[in-house]
Amino acid sequence: MKKTAIFPGSFDPYTMGHKSVVDQGLSLFDRVIVAIGINVEKRGLLTPENRVALIRDLYHDEPRVEVITYEGLTADLARRLGTPFLLRGMRNTVDFEFERNMMQLNQALNPELTTVLLFTPPEYVAISSSSVREIIAFGGDVSSFMPPGIDLKKYI
Amino acid sequence: MKKTAIFPGSFDPYTMGHKSVVDQGLSLFDRVIVAIGINVEKRGLLTPENRVALIRDLYHDEPRVEVITYEGLTADLARRLGTPFLLRGMRNTVDFEFERNMMQLNQALNPELTTVLLFTPPEYVAISSSSVREIIAFGGDVSSFMPPGIDLKKYI
Amino acid sequence: MKKTAIFPGSFDPYTMGHKSVVDQGLSLFDRVIVAIGINVEKRGLLTPENRVALIRDLYHDEPRVEVITYEGLTADLARRLGTPFLLRGMRNTVDFEFERNMMQLNQALNPELTTVLLFTPPEYVAISSSSVREIIAFGGDVSSFMPPGIDLKKYI
Amino acid sequence: MKKTAIFPGSFDPYTMGHKSVVDQGLSLFDRVIVAIGINVEKRGLLTPENRVALIRDLYHDEPRVEVITYEGLTADLARRLGTPFLLRGMRNTVDFEFERNMMQLNQALNPELTTVLLFTPPEYVAISSSSVREIIAFGGDVSSFMPPGIDLKKYI
Amino acid sequence: MKKTAIFPGSFDPYTMGHKSVVDQGLSLFDRVIVAIGINVEKRGLLTPENRVALIRDLYHDEPRVEVITYEGLTADLARRLGTPFLLRGMRNTVDFEFERNMMQLNQALNPELTTVLLFTPPEYVAISSSSVREIIAFGGDVSSFMPPGIDLKKYI
Amino acid sequence: MKKTAIFPGSFDPYTMGHKSVVDQGLSLFDRVIVAIGINVEKRGLLTPENRVALIRDLYHDEPRVEVITYEGLTADLARRLGTPFLLRGMRNTVDFEFERNMMQLNQALNPELTTVLLFTPPEYVAISSSSVREIIAFGGDVSSFMPPGIDLKKYI
Repeated sequence: MKKTAIFPGSFDPYTMGHKSVVDQGLSLFDRVIVAIGINVEKRGLLTPENRVALIRDLYHDEPRVEVITYEGLTADLARRLGTPFLLRGMRNTVDFEFERNMMQLNQALNPELTTVLLFTPPEYVAISSSSVREIIAFGGDVSSFMPPGIDLKKYI
Repeated sequence: MKKTAIFPGSFDPYTMGHKSVVDQGLSLFDRVIVAIGINVEKRGLLTPENRVALIRDLYHDEPRVEVITYEGLTADLARRLGTPFLLRGMRNTVDFEFERNMMQLNQALNPELTTVLLFTPPEYVAISSSSVREIIAFGGDVSSFMPPGIDLKKYI
Repeated sequence: MKKTAIFPGSFDPYTMGHKSVVDQGLSLFDRVIVAIGINVEKRGLLTPENRVALIRDLYHDEPRVEVITYEGLTADLARRLGTPFLLRGMRNTVDFEFERNMMQLNQALNPELTTVLLFTPPEYVAISSSSVREIIAFGGDVSSFMPPGIDLKKYI
Repeated sequence: MKKTAIFPGSFDPYTMGHKSVVDQGLSLFDRVIVAIGINVEKRGLLTPENRVALIRDLYHDEPRVEVITYEGLTADLARRLGTPFLLRGMRNTVDFEFERNMMQLNQALNPELTTVLLFTPPEYVAISSSSVREIIAFGGDVSSFMPPGIDLKKYI
Repeated sequence: MKKTAIFPGSFDPYTMGHKSVVDQGLSLFDRVIVAIGINVEKRGLLTPENRVALIRDLYHDEPRVEVITYEGLTADLARRLGTPFLLRGMRNTVDFEFERNMMQLNQALNPELTTVLLFTPPEYVAISSSSVREIIAFGGDVSSFMPPGIDLKKYI
Repeated sequence: MKKTAIFPGSFDPYTMGHKSVVDQGLSLFDRVIVAIGINVEKRGLLTPENRVALIRDLYHDEPRVEVITYEGLTADLARRLGTPFLLRGMRNTVDFEFERNMMQLNQALNPELTTVLLFTPPEYVAISSSSVREIIAFGGDVSSFMPPGIDLKKYI
């Protein structure tokens, strides 16, 4: 039976840190669905459409990665998609406490769910979407935080 | 001499996690005052009046629990109420660092204060008012996070 | 292709916490190898043979769980067994820091390795082999920490 | 009804950190029982008799503090003493994770138990019995870590 | 060769905690530049001009402390000022995780940078600019959190 | 005036992690004294003489690094050497809590002391002397954890 994992997040933008988690996830799962949670009240750096476009461009040669957007609870999304696996990366102890809470909440909402955690490699531990946005706001260069071949300017 | 503890918070809304702390606190103190801190600049999920109503409904058979609202510093509230005891629940290491800071600040403002900490039971560790609000915003079911007998919809 | 995970540890003894990780792991992997690391210089509560026996008894109806003992580095064991996946459970931030170190060390020794982390469910977070050993030393009852059907006394 | 708390530990030796917890505890409880856990296999800096003597000398004017020794599980001691309250001090996040585990284990062994946590004041956060023992082994002066009036040399 | 450290922050307002870091930094460096990062979109308690004035008033007898404002990335500021040293204080594990991230980001942007960390003394660990602002909003007295001789009201 | 830092530790053995801290320290201090604390009751992997030899071999071209051994308290060593600066590296939150305790203890014993903390670079975060010893005990290859040019076998 094919195994599918949902990799939920805002991905505003998708970074090398996210890519490192999906790369590891692809060795574990047959398919990884990058699920972009949309918050209509919050304007991001990238529009939802451009977040999708960036990730699809990155994985255009990897048919096992799909990209979708969703509104509402991740626990409900997993039910609709018919898979119990959530994939998440962890960088530090603050992430750990956050992920443990999310896991417990998700399981209260959908007892079938299993959260699978992978470590972000040490060289990408400091990279987050919010630090990328902040560096861009200050006119800095984020190319070393982005997946190779992705020019973030094209999507902003 | 009767011992009274103040249990300060926003309680927007009061959850099973809060209830588990007050339940333990009632074995320790003669009276627990649930003190709802009001921030006039911030609109919550529940109005202050409805937060009070929810907690009063929950404890209508427990005369040892009182519910009040307050503005300003908790350290000043404790002085006005004439009790040195603050009651707080702790869920994880992020809470721990926050509570330790609050304790030190409160003691600088009112050296009489003693902060009494109780563990949130493991099954309620993931429950917080903010996660309840988020799940509601996404249309999820929060009944398992609320004290038995409390229908949150009545107070929103 | 079948996916196999190594679940390394001392398992002196195997507890409900370990079982909860393997149970989740079986939904993710085709096979889980419980690999008991043997330290000849350290006398445990259970002999290596009895640790194996306990785990085999527990999984006698689950052919997808294998039990082996090994000496030496886990990174070398993974190479010999021909699988890149290490399965580990995490309970708290102290575990997190330990597991992150182990992951980085293992990857320095065997760059193929992927460490897959699963959360220990909240109700088993306090259970560890060392706490079981300590409670037994003090004459306490550990039956609620052991997998159902396992009578630890038979293996000591 | 009088409220009694058990303050369990090794107290080898009792330090200013311990005293600060008991001082706060006395405002909360009618009686605090300092319960010295004896591990017959481990030789300490102070004999159990001298640990008792030091603490009794310190509280000779405070009849609300009792000192006892015990072997076995704290959860059983609480049952024998007929009190559900364990008193513990917390210094940092490593303590937090340890205490949360202990609380959960104790509750599995004795569901009546409530663990009451107090913060060690910031100026005593670094003081532990093990650091006192280490400083003494290196010939250092520990008088600032001991309660006023206690000359540790008399008890070694 | 003279050694200069940049002490970056918002300093809204500068507190005893900041002063304790700079005091230690002056024993290590020949010169400390307090660099006030300006975020034009965020209105603070103090205007940038008044933040500068407060810090200059405090150090009017200490020519080795300079005060500047800057916009943009700290990594770029360090390049412009020609010094590789960033000075930062740390209070707790949440600060630690934040500072480690900042260090790694800064080094990706400017590989020359060295982040030098000093502990905030225990008695000032709870003091932060945001807690000072909150206490003021609630009408509390923050004089014990401010450096001696500084009357915060003059700068608001 | 020349500034000297003491870098205290067991260094059994000295690793790339230690080297990365001293390298950063040399940009900050005029001289770094690597101070090997000797515990006569504990037999290590390397003799004290060989620990000294390894570090001296590594820095034979760097006259600003000295290597000494000492017994007793680091706070006393600093007094004897006439320098107030202790240099320490930090890898994770467990290190952070340990270092904060040490800093506070050292300052109680010698109020002149300033502990200067530097981050271990992310790629060396998992390396510790104890992990090197464990890998060697299991027959693994530690060359990537050792400073370039150092063949650990020569010193064992």
